[in-house]
Amino acid sequence: MGIRVAVAGASGYAGGELVRLIAGHPELDLVAATAHSQAGSALSAVHPQLAGLDLTLSATDPAVLADADLVFLALPHGQSAALAAQLPDSVKVVDLGADHRLTDAAAWESYYGGPHAGAWTYGLPELPGQRAAIAAATRVANTGCYAATITLALAPLVAAGAVEADDVVVVAASGTSGAGRAAKTHLLATEVMGDLSTYKTGAHQHVPEIKQATGARSLSFTPLLAPMPRGILATVTARPTGTADAADVLAAAYAGEPFVRVLPKGVFPRTAATLGSNACHLQATLDRDSGRVIVVSALDNLGKGAAGQAMQCANLMLGLPETTGLSAFGVMP
Amino acid sequence: MGIRVAVAGASGYAGGELVRLIAGHPELDLVAATAHSQAGSALSAVHPQLAGLDLTLSATDPAVLADADLVFLALPHGQSAALAAQLPDSVKVVDLGADHRLTDAAAWESYYGGPHAGAWTYGLPELPGQRAAIAAATRVANTGCYAATITLALAPLVAAGAVEADDVVVVAASGTSGAGRAAKTHLLATEVMGDLSTYKTGAHQHVPEIKQATGARSLSFTPLLAPMPRGILATVTARPTGTADAADVLAAAYAGEPFVRVLPKGVFPRTAATLGSNACHLQATLDRDSGRVIVVSALDNLGKGAAGQAMQCANLMLGLPETTGLSAFGVMP
Amino acid sequence: MGIRVAVAGASGYAGGELVRLIAGHPELDLVAATAHSQAGSALSAVHPQLAGLDLTLSATDPAVLADADLVFLALPHGQSAALAAQLPDSVKVVDLGADHRLTDAAAWESYYGGPHAGAWTYGLPELPGQRAAIAAATRVANTGCYAATITLALAPLVAAGAVEADDVVVVAASGTSGAGRAAKTHLLATEVMGDLSTYKTGAHQHVPEIKQATGARSLSFTPLLAPMPRGILATVTARPTGTADAADVLAAAYAGEPFVRVLPKGVFPRTAATLGSNACHLQATLDRDSGRVIVVSALDNLGKGAAGQAMQCANLMLGLPETTGLSAFGVMP
Amino acid sequence: MGIRVAVAGASGYAGGELVRLIAGHPELDLVAATAHSQAGSALSAVHPQLAGLDLTLSATDPAVLADADLVFLALPHGQSAALAAQLPDSVKVVDLGADHRLTDAAAWESYYGGPHAGAWTYGLPELPGQRAAIAAATRVANTGCYAATITLALAPLVAAGAVEADDVVVVAASGTSGAGRAAKTHLLATEVMGDLSTYKTGAHQHVPEIKQATGARSLSFTPLLAPMPRGILATVTARPTGTADAADVLAAAYAGEPFVRVLPKGVFPRTAATLGSNACHLQATLDRDSGRVIVVSALDNLGKGAAGQAMQCANLMLGLPETTGLSAFGVMP
Repeated sequence: MGIRVAVAGASGYAGGELVRLIAGHPELDLVAATAHSQAGSALSAVHPQLAGLDLTLSATDPAVLADADLVFLALPHGQSAALAAQLPDSVKVVDLGADHRLTDAAAWESYYGGPHAGAWTYGLPELPGQRAAIAAATRVANTGCYAATITLALAPLVAAGAVEADDVVVVAASGTSGAGRAAKTHLLATEVMGDLSTYKTGAHQHVPEIKQATGARSLSFTPLLAPMPRGILATVTARPTGTADAADVLAAAYAGEPFVRVLPKGVFPRTAATLGSNACHLQATLDRDSGRVIVVSALDNLGKGAAGQAMQCANLMLGLPETTGLSAFGVMP
Repeated sequence: MGIRVAVAGASGYAGGELVRLIAGHPELDLVAATAHSQAGSALSAVHPQLAGLDLTLSATDPAVLADADLVFLALPHGQSAALAAQLPDSVKVVDLGADHRLTDAAAWESYYGGPHAGAWTYGLPELPGQRAAIAAATRVANTGCYAATITLALAPLVAAGAVEADDVVVVAASGTSGAGRAAKTHLLATEVMGDLSTYKTGAHQHVPEIKQATGARSLSFTPLLAPMPRGILATVTARPTGTADAADVLAAAYAGEPFVRVLPKGVFPRTAATLGSNACHLQATLDRDSGRVIVVSALDNLGKGAAGQAMQCANLMLGLPETTGLSAFGVMP
Repeated sequence: MGIRVAVAGASGYAGGELVRLIAGHPELDLVAATAHSQAGSALSAVHPQLAGLDLTLSATDPAVLADADLVFLALPHGQSAALAAQLPDSVKVVDLGADHRLTDAAAWESYYGGPHAGAWTYGLPELPGQRAAIAAATRVANTGCYAATITLALAPLVAAGAVEADDVVVVAASGTSGAGRAAKTHLLATEVMGDLSTYKTGAHQHVPEIKQATGARSLSFTPLLAPMPRGILATVTARPTGTADAADVLAAAYAGEPFVRVLPKGVFPRTAATLGSNACHLQATLDRDSGRVIVVSALDNLGKGAAGQAMQCANLMLGLPETTGLSAFGVMP
Repeated sequence: MGIRVAVAGASGYAGGELVRLIAGHPELDLVAATAHSQAGSALSAVHPQLAGLDLTLSATDPAVLADADLVFLALPHGQSAALAAQLPDSVKVVDLGADHRLTDAAAWESYYGGPHAGAWTYGLPELPGQRAAIAAATRVANTGCYAATITLALAPLVAAGAVEADDVVVVAASGTSGAGRAAKTHLLATEVMGDLSTYKTGAHQHVPEIKQATGARSLSFTPLLAPMPRGILATVTARPTGTADAADVLAAAYAGEPFVRVLPKGVFPRTAATLGSNACHLQATLDRDSGRVIVVSALDNLGKGAAGQAMQCANLMLGLPETTGLSAFGVMP
């Protein structure tokens, strides 16, 4: 008899990945998977990769979820707070949505609109002090996928004073699963295959989270939609303050980390190498012409950028070894 | 201290997948990974998805391999026999190459040329009697990826007399990893993305293996190269002999099988649902116009079509539960 | 002052391709482009590739269309007949929909349902006698994309008695644009990239059209959805009746044709080579094991499979050189 | 009898695209297409999209080329200068290689190594004064694909003093055809599909060309390899100097241009919209958080980034209308 977990929002891509991870986790039992319009469907009808996992999606009922030891909320952004408020304190919660990430209510209101639900413990174990905080928490706000990619690349450099916190420029490309599973014309395969484009150019709602988590004071962030299902590649540039080697600073920050890896000198990250895993790969160099520090960061937006990260946090919250049921090795090619 | 295994040909795609599976297997220790031109390279330099796995590729030396309890041979076709002959009988061997699959020396010589190395136990546990044979064997010839896809779709129907063994027509599309990792112009991303084509049209060397394993007497097999890295989808058509429901015959044949799944009525296989897993998904129907039985079969050519299948066989040969270290659930989307 | 043409259904993929072809055509003036829900939008807002073409989509009003010399109907299947009935006889019409393709009312009702609108001249100029018929017609039913691909491969062989008309087996894979532009979850990029699947397995509604156009008496047709935006590759197999070389029969049938090309011996078609063009590439061989004739056929489903074919017919109907504004050379890579 | 043109390096991707454009050009006759290792092959054996174009690749012989009125050099970088030196002055030359682009010999030697061949007229007609210079030239150095994408986005802003020339940050993603047609493992479809990565990170050899053409004084340029065959999307950020609207500045600079288009406010470029065309699409905005100007630029690396641009220059040099044989409309989807 394992630890009882539930997934709310199991019909989406992050929800499906959570169920896959739970199915392969030696200590967890999935007691409920809930959905909205898909409630009543077989889980495997919604997620063909889970054929053989015999479970029916139920409606998102707080009473059902309250029966679990830990609940993952993988709901559309903006729907977590109301549901979380109906769960007893005894139930641990990891929220994959944005509702509880920002400490600054004004930033929330400016970028998302609506009332601010308040901040929970931020779910990025590799930040200084955060691992213990997560282990002690009953409510954890999982990082966003872009924020995870960029924060792992930049936060140690800002914290060490190795780069200026002003005028950070980031361009990050994401696979399409980051845009969710709702049927929209511009996300059709016919539109995306063979195509690259920017979106929310100049005004992405994740900027406040990224600034909060990285310590950047000024951030130009341009996201790209890339013709692949999964993966984020971020190119993070900032002006160096001195002569510290950025790759060395990163390597020191992540020494001993099971999932964050600074690659050997001269080897740069590829998103495919992280597919299906909880790994984040990093590399840094100095730009020859401009002198800027360039950090390249890659992860799976549904792995370390969502479900994998959430599982890592859940392991910590449940007192399990942090790596249980997770892999650092991607499915490649 | 686990069971000691080695991989010869670890620099290729199947070899890399084997190492990934071994790294996640609770009972196996990888004691050697060998290669030819890449000997001396870090494993993670050749397989970026294995970053953090600290191992160097060594030259393919029988003495090194002989130190393992079980050796996986993931060599280019035609190179297994000579190496296998140098390994002591006490070392179990699973050969992912074609060298030891065919029982018919004439067929070997006709399609492959060169002397026939003799047949080993055929590594498809779901065939009647084969699970026990593999468990008892010290030498197993892993199925080819096309043969696995097609045999799982067709063999029970031929065995049950539900379809005619003559005039079977198969069209099967494979992702590009099935073509290996050698640098060839026609396999460049620029050539393949956005493109579909047939290859070896009318004369594929796997026809004898497929006929041997399925019981088909006459087979038109046309392979397609599809613009995706992994996955095989086979469309197998044959004339029915009576009124038996093909899907029911398949469901009965695979009842209780952990990795082969006949999908619910009306649901057809998708390759993506099997990515990175050892699953094979099947469905059958009657063609409305022609009356032919159509069976659709999907698997991951590097999973159930190569490395996953090999691990399943190895588990049987080593007396471990057959599913150890393997997943039936694909990484999707 | 050129010939006045209009496009009804200009917001879809075939409609957009028609507008692109018209824009590059030296004799045609586009006087109206109509749409349903997109009426009122700038054409270039709906088709980004037409940026700079200054035209607004109007509502689909027969009075507007009646002002043209020739109207292309690129409407969802089933909507052409009602609109066409409202256009005066003096306006030439090419219908890209299925409504007027079938001569057999019973087949129409069985596969499509609803009343049969009656058959128009079939728009495949390369069929014997059809070029003159199209040139003389004021109403032409453009071929379907699968029908064009398969008919060009098979019809000359059936007509010549080189293959049996019974037990023809076809597997054909299409890029996603063939499924249209409506937003559907299973057509999202996230679902399709890296995936292959069959659809409408065993019962596709184009079977009667294909039988009518090819002369096949019994047809097993399985369509696949391929992870690419455009292109169809068909594998057509039939039993030979004698020793005629199928490639020679095809070469003789298409001698002098500007858009249908039998490739040199040993060279097989690739869809990418036809992208954006009106070309169809063919090759044939005998299957070594089964003795079946295998014909492989490739074209662009929006080119020779839809808009290109429609323009070729329009050129004939308008007394222009058949190749005007069309290319036989694909955009590749 | 048209104008006689030849293509040296016709076996590569840019060479193939040049031949396609020449085949559709009403005034040009292709009198020779030369290659190195492919000399003697049928052109259509090397470029399947040119099936039906009956020409054999010849060896790259200056005497053969000298017989043309204009020669396109589409050779590997570094091979143009030696060949060009052997062509008489009476033969016009457009060089698609880098050899004659840089005016600064020191920059050449620093980034490329070897002796500097000297600069030719720079082949970007949309730069002030450049159209006339090209029309008057007999030797033109075609822009590089990245340089074209970035220069069209940035040069008018620097020239107008609307942005600072220091600390320009560019991230640009290219489809794989930009990497050429040589068989390399890291460019295999299996490696690239589903993957994003940077390359030549921090030290790309096109930086001097981009600085020369744009007027940027300091440039951080990071290129990405994207999983698609064609297309470049550049994200160019620079600090504004005042309150000038960058999109307005660009629109004014390109008013009347046939191929460069600033999209309507709020619409951002997509590479697919330029596929197979000579179009470049632009849009600009202010980043909300950092205040940087962001310009997004998209084109087809083989179109406006190579062969299309070269044809535009050739038209000017030959006294033909600049748009002859070129389209501003992409093949999409």
